[in-house]
This record gives sequence, C-alpha cells and structure tokens, in this order.
Amino acid sequence: MGGLEGYMSEKRIITLLSDFGLQDVYVGAIKGAIARINPQLKVIDLTHQIPPQNIAAGRFCLMNACPYFPPETVHVAVVDPGVGSQRRGVAVEFPGGFLVGPDNGLFSGILSLSPAVAAVELTNPKYWRSPHPSSTFHGRDIFAPVGAYLASGVSLKSLGTQIDPDSLVHLPIPECKLTNTSISGCIQYIDTFGNLITNIPAAAVEGKSWSVAVGDLRIPSRQTYSDVQSGEIVALIGSHSWVEIAVNGGSAKSRLQLDWGDSLEVVLANNLKSF
Amino acid sequence: MGGLEGYMSEKRIITLLSDFGLQDVYVGAIKGAIARINPQLKVIDLTHQIPPQNIAAGRFCLMNACPYFPPETVHVAVVDPGVGSQRRGVAVEFPGGFLVGPDNGLFSGILSLSPAVAAVELTNPKYWRSPHPSSTFHGRDIFAPVGAYLASGVSLKSLGTQIDPDSLVHLPIPECKLTNTSISGCIQYIDTFGNLITNIPAAAVEGKSWSVAVGDLRIPSRQTYSDVQSGEIVALIGSHSWVEIAVNGGSAKSRLQLDWGDSLEVVLANNLKSF
Amino acid sequence: MGGLEGYMSEKRIITLLSDFGLQDVYVGAIKGAIARINPQLKVIDLTHQIPPQNIAAGRFCLMNACPYFPPETVHVAVVDPGVGSQRRGVAVEFPGGFLVGPDNGLFSGILSLSPAVAAVELTNPKYWRSPHPSSTFHGRDIFAPVGAYLASGVSLKSLGTQIDPDSLVHLPIPECKLTNTSISGCIQYIDTFGNLITNIPAAAVEGKSWSVAVGDLRIPSRQTYSDVQSGEIVALIGSHSWVEIAVNGGSAKSRLQLDWGDSLEVVLANNLKSF
Repeated sequence: MGGLEGYMSEKRIITLLSDFGLQDVYVGAIKGAIARINPQLKVIDLTHQIPPQNIAAGRFCLMNACPYFPPETVHVAVVDPGVGSQRRGVAVEFPGGFLVGPDNGLFSGILSLSPAVAAVELTNPKYWRSPHPSSTFHGRDIFAPVGAYLASGVSLKSLGTQIDPDSLVHLPIPECKLTNTSISGCIQYIDTFGNLITNIPAAAVEGKSWSVAVGDLRIPSRQTYSDVQSGEIVALIGSHSWVEIAVNGGSAKSRLQLDWGDSLEVVLANNLKSF
Repeated sequence: MGGLEGYMSEKRIITLLSDFGLQDVYVGAIKGAIARINPQLKVIDLTHQIPPQNIAAGRFCLMNACPYFPPETVHVAVVDPGVGSQRRGVAVEFPGGFLVGPDNGLFSGILSLSPAVAAVELTNPKYWRSPHPSSTFHGRDIFAPVGAYLASGVSLKSLGTQIDPDSLVHLPIPECKLTNTSISGCIQYIDTFGNLITNIPAAAVEGKSWSVAVGDLRIPSRQTYSDVQSGEIVALIGSHSWVEIAVNGGSAKSRLQLDWGDSLEVVLANNLKSF
Repeated sequence: MGGLEGYMSEKRIITLLSDFGLQDVYVGAIKGAIARINPQLKVIDLTHQIPPQNIAAGRFCLMNACPYFPPETVHVAVVDPGVGSQRRGVAVEFPGGFLVGPDNGLFSGILSLSPAVAAVELTNPKYWRSPHPSSTFHGRDIFAPVGAYLASGVSLKSLGTQIDPDSLVHLPIPECKLTNTSISGCIQYIDTFGNLITNIPAAAVEGKSWSVAVGDLRIPSRQTYSDVQSGEIVALIGSHSWVEIAVNGGSAKSRLQLDWGDSLEVVLANNLKSF
C-alpha cells in the first residue's frame, strides 16, 4: 500500500472507462481496490459498456468525455484484449490530467486533441494491488491502484520507467477525404440511440450548405433532431462536433442498415443544385 | 463559470434521470460538466434507461423516486425529444428541492404530489456550460450546469426569467374510473421484472377485498409475491403504492401479453361472490 | 430517523448488490433513503444486474467482490425472492465489516471465506425507513436504512435480536470431486463476456499440468486469454481464482453451448499423455 503518507488530503477525481459491463462485479472490485488505497477519492464512471475489446470505440468515448472534466482528473481506461501479454501498461500526463491503462491505442483520440507531456511504463509493483497481479485483470490489480495513487498525489515518475510519449501505440482515427464538392468519410461510432457518428468534423462543413449521400439517398442537414418530422432521417452536427445521421424518434442504424466503418459522403453546397 | 464565490462549501445532492443509456459517454460528460463547476457535489443516478423519449415513463420514475430524497435535493431530468426546438428549459422549486429540465410534462407527476412553489425559464447563459450550447445536448450544456449551480447555492431567480408555475406543461397521469363495484384503469409503467404497474392508487382498494380482471382472467390480490406459488399470477399493492400485477419468479408482461397503456379492471368485494 | 446524534462524522462505505436492474428507479430510491439518513456516506454499486432472484449468482458476486473493500465496509445485498414472507432479515458482522440483507444463503460464499462474528435479526423498526415497510421492497425500507445506520456508527446489537451465526441459512457452493487424475466440477457462474467460471479453485490445479474436458473436447490451460489465437478456446485461472473457460475475443458460453450448473472435468498431468 505504501507511499500515501501526506497525500490523503488531496481529493481528485478518477474516471473509469471499460468494456467490463455492469452485470458482473469486475467494476465493483475495481472500486473496492481504489477505496482501499484512498476512500476520499471521487470515482466517476464514464461507461463500462464499450463493446467487448473494441479499442476504437473506447478511443472515441475517451476523446469525447475527457475534455469535460476538470484538469488534474485521472482517467483509468481498460479495453485490453492483450491483458497478460507483452503489451505495456502506461500512465500518461497530458493537459487534462492523467491517462492510465494498456498501451494499445486507446488514448490516441484524446492525445490527438491534447498531446502527451510525459509517460511512464508501469513497472513499479509498489503501486499495484499486489506484486503478483492476476494475468487477466490488470484493471483491478494494476491500473486502478496506480490511478488511485496518482489521484492521491504520487508522482508520475514514481510509477515506473519513463518512456518517450511518441513511442505510445498510435491508433489513428480514419481520416476523411475532402474535394471541392464532397467529403468522403465513414461511421466511427454508433450510439445507443442508433445515431451514426461519422469521422467528418464539424469544422469541415461549418458555414456551408451540405447534405449526406448514402447510396442513392440524400439526407438534408438541419440544426437538431426535431427540425424534421418524427420518423424522418436528418444529418446534423452532433454534440461531440462530428457530422451525424439520426432519425427523429428512431434509429438511423436500423433504418439505413449501416454499421461501424461503413462509408458515406458529405455533398457540399455547389453540388446541391441538382438536389 | 462565474458566480460560485462563497458557495463552494455547500454540499447538496444532485440526482440525474435520463434516457441516455449507459453505453455511451453522454452521462459521463454530464458528470464532468458538474464536477467542473463544483467537484464537492454528490451526484446520484436515478436511472438513465428511461425508454428513449418516453416522457410518461420519465414522469412515473421521477414521481416515484424524488420523495425518498432529502429536501433541497436538485433533480436534473432529461427526456427531451424536443431538444433544440422552442420548448422551454426550466428550473422549478418545490417542497422536495428543485427540478431542472425541459418543460414537456416530465415534472407533472412529482408536482401533482408536491406542487411547485416557483419556476424560471433558463434564459441566463451565465449558468450554462457555454453561451453556445449544442443543439442536441442541453443535458450537458444547460441542465446539468444549472443543476450544479443551484445545488451550490445559486438562487433560482438568477437562472432566468420568472414564470408562472401554472404555465408549466402539464401531462396528466391518466385517471382511473371508479364505480361501486369496479375501478377501470390502465398500465402506466412496466418495470424490468415485467411487473405491470397500473394507474390505480393503493388508496382506492385499501381495506377492501379486490381482484383484477384482465379479459376472462381473474387475478386474486395478495400481500406479496411469495404469497402465491412460483410461476403464479398475483395482484398486489406495489412498493410505489399502485395496484400492480406480477408473476412470482416470472414476468407478468410476457405471461399476459399486456403492454404500456393497456386497460384492465379492479373488481371490488361485493362483486367477488361469483368468483 | 433517531439515533444518529454524534455519528454523522463517520464516513464509511456502503456497497449495494441486487437484482433490481438499472432500468427502474428502485436503486435510485434506495440511494435516496440512504442519503436521508446520512448524506456523507459513500455508496458504491457492486452490481444491480444479478439475474432475477438468482441467489447463487448473488452469492458468487458478493464472495468475489467483498474481499477487495476496506474493512468496516457495509455490504447491503438484496436478491430476495422471499420478500414479505417469513424469511428473516439479518445483519452480520464479519472480518470485512458487515453484511445486511435477507437470510436466504446470499452470504454463504463470503462467510465461507471469512466467517461471521455476530448476527442479529432485524427486528428494531427504529432503524427502518418506516415502521410500516412495503411488503415487496425491503431493500429500500429496511436493508438500506439499516446499512446506513450501521455505516454511521449504530451498533449491530441495536438493530434487533441477537441470533446464532450458525443459524444463518447456508447455501453451500457445490463441491468439486478430486481423484488422482481428475477433478469433476461444474459451472457456477457465467460472466458478461460468456466466460464459464467453474467451482474448481485455483489451488486444486496450481503447480500441475492440466486441461479441461468437455465431452470429447480437450481445452488446454494457459496463463491468459491472448496466449491463444483470436477465436480459440482456452482454460485458465480467472481473476477470482477459479478455473475458467474462455474464448479469446469471443464467448465460451455460445461456443460450447454450456449453461449454469453444467458439468465438466479437469484432467490432471499424468493423464495428459494421450492428449
């Protein structure tokens, strides 16, 4: 447990993101491990329902949640198909605080917005739950304890070997392709409502007239869901500032039969005349 | 962010209710926005699994949860099919504390039990996350920040334009019809166990002998689920004090093939002889 | 509400485990009832998605989560098919803190690891939400309030009539059968990933070469999921220290078409030659 003398008065926030689901007690055990180290910490769940082992979905969710938290927040994220293999466990300092988890690309999204300042590989078992962690549950045995110590004031460099932030695994968000008349992109995330969130940033269409083309279908752009009739399809800038396709009161995923990664095109103003 | 000087020591509770689900980071972002304003606040989830855009289900849940909280609690509720349209955002003072959310009837249930004392339309962007809120996510950008300021001690009247509480959208709970021998009602909520919760209040049957008629079926009333054999249908007064139909160890919804809004009848004692 | 004078400064942890799900406001109402008694308490959800009325699953989850929490934690657990019947409500003191809930075997697992020190039947309505609890929701009306008072410093013996801990309902974990060459066991829990967790403890296979036999299929044992190719079946020691069968990146439950309670066999080293 060592190392917390004098730190306990600090009260920072730890967030948790994982693919553990809420059915089992994996998340409960993680929170117990944190409370054992410092019961004063405030733990906030981002989500535990990342589709199993879907690192890209975890990357999207972290990128879209971290910016809303106070600086100095510690984000512990565990979508970790390689648990127990040679993949590194890391802690990363960035302007929003700290990121703790497996080095598999999960942090690529948020670090593309807000680059890493420093990073360590988690090689110091003093800050683990036990020097003999489970081979299958580093969330409980390494990442959450390390996060709890960081949030309690332990320094980044105590946690292990310093590494070059540029050496972190980079899993880039697929880039969209711009021409004068169109932007080719894809679906990078589908939310629980069936809204299709693309990889086309708001900035690419702002101030322009635009629609979305999916096969033969043209979907007009509006401000908000209720700008179209109930049951109608609409394209808009979603709350995370990406181009998004939705059905007012329904699921665009079901309606359009589109899935993660599928392609689509934004058609820009000067090409809209025939529309 | 302004306006919190001197308020930060107050530690009230904010509850959250929404149809955002727990799969995405919408709820996480809301909690981040609250923590940015006042990390000392205690945030409690009522539920985030209201069926999408089902204002009546949200109304039922708020009405049945708010009374268990301490006075001065701030309840932020977002089931908001009209987000970004002309519907008002409001904060309402009532004997249990405050309600914050869209003015669409969501608060009708709890306010029928515990009437509004004062209300404002949320027109003061000083207490929003940003003066330019997303068109699709007022939960994160307006309602949660307003709730955080309220729970930190900001006054109701600072939040915007005072409005007449009687002008709030009223979405009445369907009334049941009483005769000497029966009460006609309907199913106002179905819980996760498949229990069918009617709009017939406990007070209407208390002290009487009664059963429930659904088509040709007569369902006897008992005290609790285990008063009938496993797999049998039973009518009882549920924990929220409404007449409820359940199957011991099973789902009344599946067994009876009934759905939200379907009709049924309570048959009172003097009519039970033939039974 | 009486009895909290002088206790309010204590800040222990209450955990909650139930089969209430997160769709309804049952859990929200429980947290409100706790906050009314002592808003300073820290409430942590273990899970609310125990399969409905599955006491054995609740027993497994409690046994595997409680050990990670600080001593003096109060664990309130409600999987309670007999609510409102003659089954007792109890509070149990054990080395990890306190257990509060129905006396139906739910605590058998954790108490087999860490035996009860003292127990009471919850007969003192002073520490209930109301002297007239709902017949169907003792979680909100009895167990959570009792847990909140315990965590606030009220003594165990104030809560009701002292009982012999040996009189608590004992629901034993099915025992596995060892021979020199094999261990016969069964599946005691299936997690959200479809991992099959057996009743065979790690200690029974540690230091040995072993595989799992399911019908004609032999499943080799490895250290972690990623020690086999994606889509392959593997046996390992899971994070809760039981023999577990998994599919790397998939569901062993779906692949093997096995269910709760199904039998399987661990084959030990000297019998592995023909393999």
